[in-house]
Amino acid sequence: MLKLYGFDVSNYHNMLKLAMALKGIDYEQVTTYPNQSPEYLSICPTGKVPALQTSQGVLIETNVIMEFLDELSDTQPLYPTDSYEKARVKELVKMVELYIELPARRCHTEAFWGVPVHENTKKEVKRALYNGMQSLARAASFKPYLAGNTLSAADIFFLYSVDLASSVAKKLFDIDLLAEAPGAKELMVKLNALPEVQKIAEERKAATPAFHAYLEKAFAQK
Amino acid sequence: MLKLYGFDVSNYHNMLKLAMALKGIDYEQVTTYPNQSPEYLSICPTGKVPALQTSQGVLIETNVIMEFLDELSDTQPLYPTDSYEKARVKELVKMVELYIELPARRCHTEAFWGVPVHENTKKEVKRALYNGMQSLARAASFKPYLAGNTLSAADIFFLYSVDLASSVAKKLFDIDLLAEAPGAKELMVKLNALPEVQKIAEERKAATPAFHAYLEKAFAQK
Repeated sequence: MLKLYGFDVSNYHNMLKLAMALKGIDYEQVTTYPNQSPEYLSICPTGKVPALQTSQGVLIETNVIMEFLDELSDTQPLYPTDSYEKARVKELVKMVELYIELPARRCHTEAFWGVPVHENTKKEVKRALYNGMQSLARAASFKPYLAGNTLSAADIFFLYSVDLASSVAKKLFDIDLLAEAPGAKELMVKLNALPEVQKIAEERKAATPAFHAYLEKAFAQK
Repeated sequence: MLKLYGFDVSNYHNMLKLAMALKGIDYEQVTTYPNQSPEYLSICPTGKVPALQTSQGVLIETNVIMEFLDELSDTQPLYPTDSYEKARVKELVKMVELYIELPARRCHTEAFWGVPVHENTKKEVKRALYNGMQSLARAASFKPYLAGNTLSAADIFFLYSVDLASSVAKKLFDIDLLAEAPGAKELMVKLNALPEVQKIAEERKAATPAFHAYLEKAFAQK
């Protein structure tokens, strides 16, 4: 059986949980926090999560794993079959990750755990988040999904990455990131109403105390 | 015919030129520097390069375009057909971009154009480049190619991204990035010996004065 290394508070981990829930793929979860132990590095070359153990070996990087999972099962396809349309979905996934998720992450220690970030970094991130959402608004349909009338992998990335980035933008800059892309708020509401998404949110809540204990230990060691 | 927007000094642009040269795909180049003009934003939602105009619409993001091109022509496949092996190549591409190219870019204004970067940023980038190359060394085969005995898209990313990152690492930190991954130097020599790579290097050299003129104008406007 597939083994998913990760933890229920990680937004990348939850993207894969949602993909597998929607596609009806069974897996075993091995609750793992990012770490550089020789044991985990021998499984996952970056020490990050998530990582997926398959019968052929381990895979890392959420978007890569999601494409692999989509080829495992025809239930609820997350990517179109046409080459161009498939590329468009991958492009939207990449835009969400590179231009929204990654800039937001540069500030999330301050937004969520009170560990201050340099003012220069905050200035860069604020501009990057505006640019990222405006680029996404130009590229995506939001009618009602990112790629048009069918839910795709891009919506799963949008749900978990833009949620994180919106919190960072609200807390640190008092800006409403979703307002930059017409249709984004409605899509967020629609995705959050899915029963699979609600189950993952409950599991996230339940796993939060253990994650905080892990963080306290990690910061104490620094 | 396919239209490629970009310029011959851009390493991302050159990845696509090499992919198309190896695969024998014809295209027209529209020399374009990154810009936020309404005209270009209506073609490319980020204003970055490269972008590929296809008969169905525009695609952006180099790795996405490379996967699309690979499905256009069976000549010299750049991704394996097996789902797991294909995912492994995409994983290596992603690792090169996220953990080597992108950190290096945070410092390339200082390394190449003398525009200083904050000391904090340099400290972060130095550590990130070490970690990135060490992760790649754990994940990749280098026997002789990144994914094993066949050239793949991962080698094209390695050639142009690790070349840029090595220059940044040498100039700013006096470190030899390629030494972190056994086999990396030999692979770089092997790839640089390909006639298609040499042709692109010549075109890059020829296009450098025009790029410098563009940069001077861009900095003067700031």
